[in-house]
Amino acid sequence: MPNPTAAMLVIGDEILSGRTRDANMHFLAGELVKRGIDLIEVRIVSDSGDAIVAAVNDLRASVDHVFTSGGIGPTHDDITADNIARAFGDTIDVRDDARDLLAAHYARTGAEFNEARKRMARIPSTATLIENPVSIAPGFTIGNVHVMAGVPNVFQAMVASVLPGLTGGAPLLSQSYRIERGEGQVAAPLGALAAEYPDLTMGSYPFNRNGSYGTNIVIRGTDGARIDAAMTKLAALFPADSAA
Amino acid sequence: MPNPTAAMLVIGDEILSGRTRDANMHFLAGELVKRGIDLIEVRIVSDSGDAIVAAVNDLRASVDHVFTSGGIGPTHDDITADNIARAFGDTIDVRDDARDLLAAHYARTGAEFNEARKRMARIPSTATLIENPVSIAPGFTIGNVHVMAGVPNVFQAMVASVLPGLTGGAPLLSQSYRIERGEGQVAAPLGALAAEYPDLTMGSYPFNRNGSYGTNIVIRGTDGARIDAAMTKLAALFPADSAA
Repeated sequence: MPNPTAAMLVIGDEILSGRTRDANMHFLAGELVKRGIDLIEVRIVSDSGDAIVAAVNDLRASVDHVFTSGGIGPTHDDITADNIARAFGDTIDVRDDARDLLAAHYARTGAEFNEARKRMARIPSTATLIENPVSIAPGFTIGNVHVMAGVPNVFQAMVASVLPGLTGGAPLLSQSYRIERGEGQVAAPLGALAAEYPDLTMGSYPFNRNGSYGTNIVIRGTDGARIDAAMTKLAALFPADSAA
Repeated sequence: MPNPTAAMLVIGDEILSGRTRDANMHFLAGELVKRGIDLIEVRIVSDSGDAIVAAVNDLRASVDHVFTSGGIGPTHDDITADNIARAFGDTIDVRDDARDLLAAHYARTGAEFNEARKRMARIPSTATLIENPVSIAPGFTIGNVHVMAGVPNVFQAMVASVLPGLTGGAPLLSQSYRIERGEGQVAAPLGALAAEYPDLTMGSYPFNRNGSYGTNIVIRGTDGARIDAAMTKLAALFPADSAA
């Protein structure tokens, strides 16, 4: 049986404007590999309601799970929750369960539970909450879409809340091998080896820095013995090189 | 007149599998901001022909310029050029102009111009070449799609070849301000300020590390005087804080 598939939707102007680098994508990709869920696409869209609705509806129809990050805080530019509700044709309002969590949190910390903070309790009517042990304000799951915060430590905590509940597949294993030759010399034998192992993927990643150049080969698959066998043949093809 | 719009398509399994972090996106975003071209979407897809065709056709219909990175090298997993041709309904083969560039390069370096390396001269019939001063193998532009290498220093060189030929708009300017308070306290005054300056965008980015937390506000727009004015008001609203 093929592994379940996933897509990620990153919401926010800050990456598209070059201000910050996304960290959540790399984290989620690593967690999904371990869980045997194949991340097949990532999209990054701006803080635009129409862009969010279009991307969510496109992605949720094409993969088993969609993970979103960003746009669920208390400020005017946090428009993710409302637009996810719109994408699903669901209603959204401050919901008792989320409001109770936040009210208790602010009662403990002594901070005012003001109108802006109440916005973080806006949850679509058919969604279930995703626990946030870091800063309490919950994410939510609606259909096959998991809506999470963009702040990295909160995003990571929410992923940890969501993943154990999802059916995984066979974890993707990989081994890499560094060859001190350009891709142009590696290509033909590598292509023949890849054809011999259609159940594995063999990625070729040239590098070129500090005057040194070469090729990293990454062999991926779900059967460790097959990867071992292919890696042994690869090393025999390029014996002068050392494993990375 | 609104700025031209752009999208980026990153092609390759290595990011989706969590093996590497993308560097090209951050670079391109910064260059486009300077040029006054608005990057409104990024997609990352795997080394799948159908995924490439679908994404390119979707994006090129919705923005002024599409920039792709990855998948134009000599190995079996480099399938971008063929699938871009397919997306445009164009034919593709080894083209004389690209082959001549590569033949001269390998004659100079003494390396064999073998079959794998000839694959890098496969260019769609209606495309124009993008110069690659780093490693010679060219990218290409077809319609409004600019197809470039994934290796960061080559990608950057190709972007430098392409951008001067594109019509830009008003460069996006930004100023940021760091507030040592949570978003929940900042939200209401910030929202009112944002409503007062509909021509600017005000992004709110909470941070939370090493026990310190607060909010970075980024005000963006094309009119520096307007940004100055809004920033002055923001600083007056949160006077105890220092500019970042």
